[in-house]
Amino acid sequence: KNSIKIIGQTTDMYTQAYFAYDAKKSGGVTQSHLRFGKDPIRSPYYVSRADFVACHAPSYVDKYDLAKDLKDGGIFLLNCPWKAEELEEKLPAELKRGLAAKNARFYIIDALGIASGLGLGGRTNSVLQSAFFKLVDVIPLDIALEEMKKAVRKTYSKKGKKVVEMNVAAIDAGIDGLIEVKVPVSWKNAKDAPVDLSHLPEFVREVVIPMNRQEGDDVPVSMYGRFNIPDGTFPSGMTKYEKRGVAVSVPRWNIDNCIHCNQCALVCPHAAIRPILIDAEEKKNAPAGFETKKALGKGLENYAFRIQVSPYDCTGCGSCAEVCPAKNKALEMRPLEEELRQHENWTFAVDDVRIKADAVKDTSVKHSQFAQPLFEFSGACAGCGETPYIKLATQLFGDRMYIANASGCSSAYGGSPPSIPYAINKEGEGPAWAMSLFEDNAEYAYGMLLGSEKVRSTIADKAGALMGTSAEEAIKAYLEGRNDSVHTRAVSSALITALEAFEPANNIQKEARNFILTHRDYLRKKSYWAFGGDGWAYDIGYGGLDHVLASGQNINVLVLDTEVYSNTGGQSSKATAAGAVAKFAADGKKTKKKDLGMMAMSYGYVYVAQVAMGYDQNQVLAAMREAEAYDGPSLIIAYCPCIEHGPKCGMGKSQQEMKDAVESGYWHLYRYNPELKKEGKNPFLLDSKQPTKELVSFLRGENRYASLERTFPEQAESLFEKARTDAEERLASYQRLAKG
Amino acid sequence: KNSIKIIGQTTDMYTQAYFAYDAKKSGGVTQSHLRFGKDPIRSPYYVSRADFVACHAPSYVDKYDLAKDLKDGGIFLLNCPWKAEELEEKLPAELKRGLAAKNARFYIIDALGIASGLGLGGRTNSVLQSAFFKLVDVIPLDIALEEMKKAVRKTYSKKGKKVVEMNVAAIDAGIDGLIEVKVPVSWKNAKDAPVDLSHLPEFVREVVIPMNRQEGDDVPVSMYGRFNIPDGTFPSGMTKYEKRGVAVSVPRWNIDNCIHCNQCALVCPHAAIRPILIDAEEKKNAPAGFETKKALGKGLENYAFRIQVSPYDCTGCGSCAEVCPAKNKALEMRPLEEELRQHENWTFAVDDVRIKADAVKDTSVKHSQFAQPLFEFSGACAGCGETPYIKLATQLFGDRMYIANASGCSSAYGGSPPSIPYAINKEGEGPAWAMSLFEDNAEYAYGMLLGSEKVRSTIADKAGALMGTSAEEAIKAYLEGRNDSVHTRAVSSALITALEAFEPANNIQKEARNFILTHRDYLRKKSYWAFGGDGWAYDIGYGGLDHVLASGQNINVLVLDTEVYSNTGGQSSKATAAGAVAKFAADGKKTKKKDLGMMAMSYGYVYVAQVAMGYDQNQVLAAMREAEAYDGPSLIIAYCPCIEHGPKCGMGKSQQEMKDAVESGYWHLYRYNPELKKEGKNPFLLDSKQPTKELVSFLRGENRYASLERTFPEQAESLFEKARTDAEERLASYQRLAKG
Ligand SMILES: Cc1ncc(C[n+]2csc(CCOP(=O)(O)OP(=O)(O)O)c2C)c(N)n1
Ligand SMILES: Cc1ncc(C[n+]2csc(CCOP(=O)(O)OP(=O)(O)O)c2C)c(N)n1
Ligand code: SF4
Ligand code: SF4
Ligand code: SF4
Ligand code: SF4
Ligand code: SF4
Ligand code: SF4
Repeated sequence: KNSIKIIGQTTDMYTQAYFAYDAKKSGGVTQSHLRFGKDPIRSPYYVSRADFVACHAPSYVDKYDLAKDLKDGGIFLLNCPWKAEELEEKLPAELKRGLAAKNARFYIIDALGIASGLGLGGRTNSVLQSAFFKLVDVIPLDIALEEMKKAVRKTYSKKGKKVVEMNVAAIDAGIDGLIEVKVPVSWKNAKDAPVDLSHLPEFVREVVIPMNRQEGDDVPVSMYGRFNIPDGTFPSGMTKYEKRGVAVSVPRWNIDNCIHCNQCALVCPHAAIRPILIDAEEKKNAPAGFETKKALGKGLENYAFRIQVSPYDCTGCGSCAEVCPAKNKALEMRPLEEELRQHENWTFAVDDVRIKADAVKDTSVKHSQFAQPLFEFSGACAGCGETPYIKLATQLFGDRMYIANASGCSSAYGGSPPSIPYAINKEGEGPAWAMSLFEDNAEYAYGMLLGSEKVRSTIADKAGALMGTSAEEAIKAYLEGRNDSVHTRAVSSALITALEAFEPANNIQKEARNFILTHRDYLRKKSYWAFGGDGWAYDIGYGGLDHVLASGQNINVLVLDTEVYSNTGGQSSKATAAGAVAKFAADGKKTKKKDLGMMAMSYGYVYVAQVAMGYDQNQVLAAMREAEAYDGPSLIIAYCPCIEHGPKCGMGKSQQEMKDAVESGYWHLYRYNPELKKEGKNPFLLDSKQPTKELVSFLRGENRYASLERTFPEQAESLFEKARTDAEERLASYQRLAKG
Repeated sequence: KNSIKIIGQTTDMYTQAYFAYDAKKSGGVTQSHLRFGKDPIRSPYYVSRADFVACHAPSYVDKYDLAKDLKDGGIFLLNCPWKAEELEEKLPAELKRGLAAKNARFYIIDALGIASGLGLGGRTNSVLQSAFFKLVDVIPLDIALEEMKKAVRKTYSKKGKKVVEMNVAAIDAGIDGLIEVKVPVSWKNAKDAPVDLSHLPEFVREVVIPMNRQEGDDVPVSMYGRFNIPDGTFPSGMTKYEKRGVAVSVPRWNIDNCIHCNQCALVCPHAAIRPILIDAEEKKNAPAGFETKKALGKGLENYAFRIQVSPYDCTGCGSCAEVCPAKNKALEMRPLEEELRQHENWTFAVDDVRIKADAVKDTSVKHSQFAQPLFEFSGACAGCGETPYIKLATQLFGDRMYIANASGCSSAYGGSPPSIPYAINKEGEGPAWAMSLFEDNAEYAYGMLLGSEKVRSTIADKAGALMGTSAEEAIKAYLEGRNDSVHTRAVSSALITALEAFEPANNIQKEARNFILTHRDYLRKKSYWAFGGDGWAYDIGYGGLDHVLASGQNINVLVLDTEVYSNTGGQSSKATAAGAVAKFAADGKKTKKKDLGMMAMSYGYVYVAQVAMGYDQNQVLAAMREAEAYDGPSLIIAYCPCIEHGPKCGMGKSQQEMKDAVESGYWHLYRYNPELKKEGKNPFLLDSKQPTKELVSFLRGENRYASLERTFPEQAESLFEKARTDAEERLASYQRLAKG
């Protein structure tokens, strides 16, 4: 974007820019289509005969047909850590043939190496931009460089002088780092060893892989008919076919240090690390490197234990290693390439090792993690604070869950075809997920409930007609247990068995039996959920959310509170606290954070919890369990660190960030359970302890606050003071409730 | 509606019905257009050549051209208390000529006399319907009567056996009560004494009067151009030209019993009774009957006092007489005709007696009533619980008020052209009122604020350019006092005077002066208000309301809480309490009333009050004054008895009903003033006392609850019990806040 701006502003050329994005937050793809020239541009379509094509991520060489849109004699720039000699081995045949056929002028640059050498970490944009100007030769190079430096100063001045200098240095380095590569004639006929895709489902081969290769526009519409999904339904469990391999480093497990706590699995935003319980029989077929140890803990005596990482699915955020509580860390981050050999172990672990249902319990963090996550490998940012909550919910209720999702990050990484991270278990059960709009999500979930509960109550009515028959016992048990989270599965299965064996004596019985068997998917208790961010829950969807909570119906709401509109770049919401810098609050938000939970508690019949996984994992688990079990509306407000907060410690420490938030009194944990009133108890439990740290030290650890001190120091002082009194008022209001 | 149903169902005729309503809630007009016949009806327009025309209200004979749509030889039925001999005198010439010209078959019936004789009060529908069937002869009379009785049984069975019987009797009485009248030939040339309208504004003559005569469709569109209101603006203060005279009885003032408390004026829903302060000079021109007494109270020594009723504007609700606290009531309800002579006194009082500004104070109920109401004679139901609050607000802030009104009763009686009850004072100042939609009213008010405050801040900026000139002192005073409710008027006027005298020394000064003088309407502090019902505030507009309150801006919200969607016939809202019968909650609402105030208080910076005029008039006054003075968002939730509650005591006791609501713990009074925090005080004041009466006795006094006991007695028992615990929980939560 910046490049086209510079061209537009420093020349008299006409410019045009299109951008095509996928919806991934980590390792995502952006295609930029830029046009410029002396004549007005009248092409309202993407560029397909390009003078210049640059690929900014080395991993894309295997995934996309990069030379496709290059014109004859055009320039191809590849950002990669490889030396020229390594290209023969690294590049796939398709790209080699393409470059040779197009007589490409081929350049490489190690932008990542250069940027991290300069202390810029992974921020390679300045390096690549100057390389672009050098190669494209559209403006005199010195002018282009000057403009770039100006832009850098403008953009980064808020972040301090050092950052500016590093970026300026990167601009110069981009020129020097360019290496020209001669395309060997032999590439004309390059051939790869054939890849066998036959083990993949047809849908994945015909639709998902082309879409993931950014060739979705070429998939014929008839495919939707062929796979019987003309209404826009999309099969779930698709992300596991992506194997993106976007991590720089991934965790390596140390079997001897591990204490089998499963916290790594709980916090992983991508479900890329899992505890495996394996029995002796299964063990026989394990790959050689599949090391295990006797599982620790009661009830696990018959199993061996292992932590398994999927190197291709891991994003390298480091959360797992950060959180590992073993005295000597049992996880160490290692370069991706070293760990690729774990891929075989992973495949074995997920394909050939059964989930051990007897080990799964929803009452301990450790045992909750033996359940299969039915949300995996989403495109969320590495280290995202939202996804661990979603994953946990699917482990607890995923096999009977309906999810309505508001627009937001959770819809972007949750349901952007073909990347569907919601998955199914071996029985084919998994969350049914859908998004309607940003503003009506609670109502949408409510509609799901009304529709499906109508079927379920019809089932119950019909079942009545079968009393006095041989199925009576199963029916009684079913009617008793159908809405009980614990028993619903067993009584539903038993009813199916009984009805399948049952011979109807007349038409009424037949009709009833058939109705029930046809609607068997509706037998079990459903778990209705509305997911969404604070932009939805506090602002745009709040009117509907309030109405649905007030309805008294058994609906569950999970608010992923990042305190800003994350998906659209960090706009201020009513969840934004005083003093935070956000879009529409550039000089710090003036008003206090809205207390959504307090408002919901005023009904008295809404289950409400505020949670923060990094502070108390057990409390999160308890809140989800209680919310779902409560026969009425439930609201869980989950604190979610987000890249938009600009955490100085990086996104690998999201869990620590949550802990700090609570310990400094920035966030509070509580549960309000209306059930307790029946027992004559106070429904409100304050679950977090009295703050022990200074609020301001927490604020200073995140750029959303710290930047205010740099840009508006006086404002910062008074707003930070306000933030402190706001937090105290909030705590006092909770303490008042806790006293009863 | 019922008649056309019976025709449709008992004959093989085709039927069609159109209804045209005005927006009046009391003494309003409905035109029913019914067609039926052996052939299909293909006329998608109103009936204009009618076989049968009935006029159900005697007062319409003077107002509408009733014979206009009658066809030659058609039947005209007039409901009136008059004997045949009186018609010569009572009927206007226009109607006489019409009836004669159309050779009408003319019938009269005293439906009101018949109905009230049967104990049906004013419910004349059964009487008139059977008269219709007798005259129209469309179905054999005995079948029609049988069908009507069936319908009566169905409709009224919930209201008990006695009601059914009375209505059945009314059906038979309708047949007997018909009197045929011979139309005298002399009526062909009947002439009235000419009426002089020349004293009325042209707009009233050309637009308002025709619209009020239901002839608005005949007003040429060009009038909007002529009166310069092509954008839909409508002049305010129009209801005073209606002089509807819809009351049966109106209050007569007893000068000796009166203690000059002005409570009658405060509670009057129609501003039809007012305290008049008159000085000796004015007294000289008073009509003979204009009796006064020396005004009681400090500061009023120079005035004489009188309570003046407008017999034509009074709806006869009786609220004033009910509430009059004089030991021997100083108001007695008397037949309208006896009091018509007060019309002359009224005209003198409002036209020729100045408002005594020095007597007006916003700190006492009595003195607040010496201010001119800028909301008068609305079409609200007689005894409406909403309008007294609105009237009071206009007395306090009306001269600088912007009102955004949600759809609902308050928009129907507040702004249905030509009946605009918002009025202007002698200086031409009055509320600016507008309605956008049902759902976006808070946002609409917020937009008014943003727009007008932008102008005001520009004024302040420009004023800066005039410092150091002769206007400096006035400018300083203005900048200091411009946002102060008390001083804003004085400093603004002084600034205008100073600037009009000021000679600019250069162009900048000239431009600044001109800008300010051109925008003089914006100088004074504005008072931004959003008005609406609970359907708006608790439900459909709540998301926006919450957002606007959260904004921290100085906006005031008045929620007229009738606990149902009154304007559309009583649908349940989140303000409806458990146990109440309402549309969509026919067997009693299951969930608790939402605590809107509690939710708003959770922000900590929103002024919130719950009020009920009938329990504590002073508290209402204090809440309005504090809310408006508070430099931030304010929310006043006002309890409003409504005809939809089915109060057994009738709507004349609305004030008593409020008192009972509070004394039984059904409703609570409080004020939450964030200002008090600055003084280290608890911001929450519980203004109502511990309940002294049984909740259930209050519930049984209103049909919305009482009917549940009749139709679903078991349900009623458990829901009334729930209502009781809900009310207790609510009180406990307020007491917790009051403790701090
Ligand atoms: C009515 C409407 N307005 C704006 C948008 C654009 N939009 C999509 S997602 C989003 C932000 C969501 O923020 P939040 O609810 O906080 O979720 P997060 O991304 O933080 O998880 C916005 C503004 C939209 N989809 N619909
Ligand atoms: C979006 C929308 N839905 C429905 C309506 C119809 N409508 C107009 S007024 C009204 C009821 C208003 O009820 P409330 O807000 O309680 O005010 P009240 O009439 O009780 O004073 C309704 C449903 C509308 N105007 N707009
Ligand atoms: S590094 Fe991050 S993504 Fe990878 S396994 Fe650990 S927590 Fe999961
Ligand atoms: S967090 Fe560490 S100790 Fe716990 S299971 Fe994972 S690797 Fe083992
Ligand atoms: S919530 Fe924040 S961290 Fe998570 S995916 Fe969205 S932007 Fe990234
Ligand atoms: S009877 Fe009702 S409308 Fe008439 S003056 Fe009294 S309070 Fe007002
Ligand atoms: S309420 Fe009664 S005593 Fe009070 S001013 Fe009115 S008439 Fe007089
Ligand atoms: S609020 Fe009730 S009493 Fe008032 S005008 Fe509306 S329906 Fe009539």
